[in-house]
Amino acid sequence: MSDGDRVLALSGGVGGAKLALGLYRILPAGSLTVVANTGDDFEHLGLSISPDLDTLLYTLGGLDHPEQGWGRRDETWNFMAALEQLGGETWFRLGDRDLAAHVERTRRLKAGEPLSAIVADFARRFGIAARILPMSDDRVRTRLYTGDGWLDFQDYFVRRRCAPAVREIAFAGAGDARPHPEALAALADPRLAAIVICPSNPFISIDPILSLPGFRAALRASPAPVVAVSPIIAGRAVKGPTAKMMEELGLPVDAAAVARHYAGLIDLFVADEADAAALAELAVPVVAARTLMTSLGDRENLARAVLGAAERLKR
Amino acid sequence: MSDGDRVLALSGGVGGAKLALGLYRILPAGSLTVVANTGDDFEHLGLSISPDLDTLLYTLGGLDHPEQGWGRRDETWNFMAALEQLGGETWFRLGDRDLAAHVERTRRLKAGEPLSAIVADFARRFGIAARILPMSDDRVRTRLYTGDGWLDFQDYFVRRRCAPAVREIAFAGAGDARPHPEALAALADPRLAAIVICPSNPFISIDPILSLPGFRAALRASPAPVVAVSPIIAGRAVKGPTAKMMEELGLPVDAAAVARHYAGLIDLFVADEADAAALAELAVPVVAARTLMTSLGDRENLARAVLGAAERLKR
Repeated sequence: MSDGDRVLALSGGVGGAKLALGLYRILPAGSLTVVANTGDDFEHLGLSISPDLDTLLYTLGGLDHPEQGWGRRDETWNFMAALEQLGGETWFRLGDRDLAAHVERTRRLKAGEPLSAIVADFARRFGIAARILPMSDDRVRTRLYTGDGWLDFQDYFVRRRCAPAVREIAFAGAGDARPHPEALAALADPRLAAIVICPSNPFISIDPILSLPGFRAALRASPAPVVAVSPIIAGRAVKGPTAKMMEELGLPVDAAAVARHYAGLIDLFVADEADAAALAELAVPVVAARTLMTSLGDRENLARAVLGAAERLKR
Repeated sequence: MSDGDRVLALSGGVGGAKLALGLYRILPAGSLTVVANTGDDFEHLGLSISPDLDTLLYTLGGLDHPEQGWGRRDETWNFMAALEQLGGETWFRLGDRDLAAHVERTRRLKAGEPLSAIVADFARRFGIAARILPMSDDRVRTRLYTGDGWLDFQDYFVRRRCAPAVREIAFAGAGDARPHPEALAALADPRLAAIVICPSNPFISIDPILSLPGFRAALRASPAPVVAVSPIIAGRAVKGPTAKMMEELGLPVDAAAVARHYAGLIDLFVADEADAAALAELAVPVVAARTLMTSLGDRENLARAVLGAAERLKR
């Protein structure tokens, strides 16, 4: 990486935000753009909630909960307790501090501001020296066809704790949604040194971004190499339903299946040290790294490994 | 008071809720109806807020803050702190627990439920054995013409801390609003033993109720005596802008001016012991009582004095 280089990351929530934080910490201020999945966004209790964007804002802003991965640190739950007392819906947990983002975002959306402008303002107020972009300012909603029929994403993910078997995934609205113009501009930027597909769930965190008309073409046309990091380590997902979902979708639960999912799109696949040897026959080059991010140092080390591999690829 | 007797109270927020609590505590379960001012209601941060209804719900539900008069006990303010961090409006203080009522009410109103049904459900969940009724399910908004021009109520009351001089008061929407049918039915109930106008601000808490088409006529036609309790003690208001407002409206700041304000409507005026002697020449009968409600006992004693005087009037 040279001075003036730019990096663009595609990310969902928790797992993606870990690597986004690593990239953010090792890169010069202002050089990272994170394009976030908004297919998880939903309306709940009359509020517009953007879980992946908020996870990125809290993580890069240093406000994230140190263990649970979502929500804010030093959170309190008195709103939720009072809501329960009033007979309100409590299956989606909204902390007292977190709630401020939902109420303020909802107010500003209703006043006509685009989501990206609100997120940019929140990021500025949190002192974040990176650009966090919703994949689109248009509405896209991930829906899952399951044994219980078609389900809204959060109904599947939170309310039913990913229990129903997933047969098909759809991104309602994606066909008419426009990728955020700043994301497209960042992809075409000659200073772009790497495009990083974070170790998020490929099917429900990254695919919504890739489903936006023109996004895949912009990725392929970009001067920068595209590097995907495997969310699967030794046949298991670090967090969330990725492994279970792959099985339900009839895929082998391994890193190779993730790499094949991104076939034609990526220039490099970063797999865990545990898996790299088994990936020798893949069409795409594979780099082994320690992909389990437990400590802050793990996040930075993986970010360095990813960017280093991208740089070697360019030479 | 005999078994089966009913009492109806008209109330604003803090001062009125104190006497409403006294009445609630001395009356048999199910015999009290409180008709609440909704002219103070407003939309803030996208939420529908009903301050007087909530004060009554919290007070009768035993959830009220013991000192400040509004809001909930054991309240926390983490939502507000996070909202400030995001650049949101913080002049109207919303506690974390209190917020649940606003979010849930807003959601249910948008789903098409009338305000009165939501309040009835909240009251039931708080275990309140009294009926708390919004004066109307239609929208009425108190506005004040001041030295700063026309102001919305909460802008005047909270944001500007009642500083602007009030020249005129209007109840936008009142002309087209319907008094709640249950309030009208309660006024016509032959079991009604007393109608109590609580010691709320006559101009901004009671007048909005009286401004609803048909409400005054229903009060006059009621079989029960109408008893008003003075919110002015020795030329001063216990709380809020009543005295300042009376001066600005060109009225003498005394209990007699309150009694005259209700002329033609009330059958009895309950004044503080400090003022009763000076009210001998009023056209309406005056009863002296200790109207300052500091303790729970004070609230109950005043409620007993008011109902006792109403009963003597009927004989």
